[in-house]
Amino acid sequence: MERIWTTDLAAHVGEQVLLQGWLHRLRRLRHVSFLVLRDGRGTAQVVLDDPATAAGLDALPAESVLAVMGEAVAEPQAPGGVELRAARIEVLSRAAEAPPFDMFRPAIRAQLPTMLDHAPLALRHPRQRAIFRLAAATMEGFRAALTERGFTEIQTPKIVGAATEGGANVFRLDYFGRPAYLSQSPQLYKQIMVGVFERVFEVGPVFRAEPHDTPRHINSFTSLDVEQGFITDHHDVMATLSAVLRQILATMAARCGPELALLRLDLPEIPSPIPAIHFSAALELLSERTGEDLRGAPDLAPAHERLLGAWARERYGSDFLFVTGYPTEQRAFYTAPDPARPFYSNAFDLIFRGVELVSGGQRLHRYEDYLATLERRGMPVASFAGYLEAFRHGMPPHGGFAIGLERLLMRLLELPNIREATLFPRDLHRLTP
Amino acid sequence: MERIWTTDLAAHVGEQVLLQGWLHRLRRLRHVSFLVLRDGRGTAQVVLDDPATAAGLDALPAESVLAVMGEAVAEPQAPGGVELRAARIEVLSRAAEAPPFDMFRPAIRAQLPTMLDHAPLALRHPRQRAIFRLAAATMEGFRAALTERGFTEIQTPKIVGAATEGGANVFRLDYFGRPAYLSQSPQLYKQIMVGVFERVFEVGPVFRAEPHDTPRHINSFTSLDVEQGFITDHHDVMATLSAVLRQILATMAARCGPELALLRLDLPEIPSPIPAIHFSAALELLSERTGEDLRGAPDLAPAHERLLGAWARERYGSDFLFVTGYPTEQRAFYTAPDPARPFYSNAFDLIFRGVELVSGGQRLHRYEDYLATLERRGMPVASFAGYLEAFRHGMPPHGGFAIGLERLLMRLLELPNIREATLFPRDLHRLTP
Repeated sequence: MERIWTTDLAAHVGEQVLLQGWLHRLRRLRHVSFLVLRDGRGTAQVVLDDPATAAGLDALPAESVLAVMGEAVAEPQAPGGVELRAARIEVLSRAAEAPPFDMFRPAIRAQLPTMLDHAPLALRHPRQRAIFRLAAATMEGFRAALTERGFTEIQTPKIVGAATEGGANVFRLDYFGRPAYLSQSPQLYKQIMVGVFERVFEVGPVFRAEPHDTPRHINSFTSLDVEQGFITDHHDVMATLSAVLRQILATMAARCGPELALLRLDLPEIPSPIPAIHFSAALELLSERTGEDLRGAPDLAPAHERLLGAWARERYGSDFLFVTGYPTEQRAFYTAPDPARPFYSNAFDLIFRGVELVSGGQRLHRYEDYLATLERRGMPVASFAGYLEAFRHGMPPHGGFAIGLERLLMRLLELPNIREATLFPRDLHRLTP
Repeated sequence: MERIWTTDLAAHVGEQVLLQGWLHRLRRLRHVSFLVLRDGRGTAQVVLDDPATAAGLDALPAESVLAVMGEAVAEPQAPGGVELRAARIEVLSRAAEAPPFDMFRPAIRAQLPTMLDHAPLALRHPRQRAIFRLAAATMEGFRAALTERGFTEIQTPKIVGAATEGGANVFRLDYFGRPAYLSQSPQLYKQIMVGVFERVFEVGPVFRAEPHDTPRHINSFTSLDVEQGFITDHHDVMATLSAVLRQILATMAARCGPELALLRLDLPEIPSPIPAIHFSAALELLSERTGEDLRGAPDLAPAHERLLGAWARERYGSDFLFVTGYPTEQRAFYTAPDPARPFYSNAFDLIFRGVELVSGGQRLHRYEDYLATLERRGMPVASFAGYLEAFRHGMPPHGGFAIGLERLLMRLLELPNIREATLFPRDLHRLTP
């Protein structure tokens, strides 16, 4: 008999079917028992009329793996309007002990560190795994939007010979007796690859040795990176980012209906276009609103981003707001200045509900501009030899952005801790499981 | 004027168009000059009738970035039957010097180390970049086949607390003062995730500190990993692998017509089903063919794989052959034995044209089997705490496989060195670019 998914049970009413999954819950009543079986997609209620069959499950710890054969029966009282009348139950794999927390409750009743310690089990909970189904939809939507627009997927090295971007926050490793480093971002490689394919993207791990112990920091995360050549300026990049976010949300909606319902998540609307404000105008606005004189401030504080987020909602009804033109010297060395006002850059942040979600911008593309910038910033040209070779041999105007997968999920789901949006988080204290 | 791709030029005959790209080649003849412009997709021939325009390009090094406006004209003599009559050329970015090798020749005339040293430039060559367009199609086809079959994409940690699989060949790193290791494979995590989603896949980097200096070894590669729950045995996994490979080749054919033509690559046929031979039968066959008594051999030597590959071609007309049932003790600790003959395993290799291409198999799924196997092999249970937790709490029969992206491309393209199929290879000697 072909196995069917629990989520397809309603389509098989009146048929003999085979379900397979985990013993999510067993409730023994006087005359009947109910088994909730969980498979990779959902759960199904199984009715055990035969006392011997039910008794046979008594000693079985939750999470044991079962095959259940029986008839799918319409039953208005059952979740989803259908249940399985079990005829035969086979134990495929017996759990060795009961879980350290109840898996059948709407949410796991345990502190986050306990859940993370027991991630192999906690991730099986429908709420937890729903988050990572959304993660998969995010990656799928990201790639689909870019493939459709002629971008080529690349895989760049994670072990690098020089700590090029911010020397302190880098993991060092022993590479056959030589020092090497874990890549903090594919930035330099994706720019090099603009010279090859013009439009590239990458989904991959990045590593940051930041010794911060906060709910927002993890030391490795999944970066969704994009770089695009032959742009006019950063507005082309912002248009690509907007389209990518739109497709990510559309893919979530298409693929993850049950997960969105379970998490009670309403996906935000992305206005077309997303409103934008220049950094200097943002400072004017903030000065007015706060009564402080913020003109000349080098950057936005988190409180300022929150105020701008509230303003975007009030003024445009938008959860999203681009802030463009951050001062050039505040951004990474490869940031392109605004040609008309070089104090300001062609970089942007995308603010979502008052918190920075994505950074990006136009990059420098002329070899001589890189040489001048590296010199001005006191950065060693020799560490950038491969990178600079691309620019020595002709690079078009280009720009890009990076979305942190876990941060995006954390913000969308309004999770209190980024670790909840990370499959097996790595932080200052945690290297396992 | 909207920019068009060189590959779309034929669709715009009679129109004024804008092309953008790199100066691939300039040929100055007495009365006319020809510019070959390369963009992210292809090349186009540009005719320069005006001597002043052509002379203006004389001092421009190859790889300078240009915008060319003019009329698309049908011209039977031109490559692709169409060329651009240039009206105006704008230099977007001037190359600082000429490339160290000619980019316009059918293949770069340089030794591999030189090409790898200059990868940011060499990868721009149409032949080189075609390989990585096939890499992108491989990843796309892999994911599409699995998403369609209900697999969920995951991202597992690349920094791990214990060197679980093969202690010697692991890169060690300093993790906030503690030792940590780079993941050699997502094997243990993808198995854990079978407990969550049943069917999972991952595309990501793996790290092997093998000090081998050969054309087949690199120290980091892209692994296409699959794991599938509720299987009957390894034959279910082999069916999934066959379907995945079929979709990879179909995606290459659909997305990479010009690249396949350029590389003169005929994609292999995948028979349905792929023929399979048991390890013990393979040894019988090899004993017959070689005259050596190979019965009782623990593994297949490369020469034996070549013979089996020739046999599969001769007997089944197939480039592919599954060998199943390798002796259990020769395989990784998590390998499931054949229940009827536990000396043999439910593991397989897929041989392609006489060389192993993919490994996979059914895994152990019972907690007590893991404890017994780890003890028998003298492996420390404590290093596997998180992994074993999954099995303590109920795991279904499952299995999977891993495809090395670069190795697959190397074999399909019959490249002499895996470095040619790796964007920025990392090996015993190479950490840059």
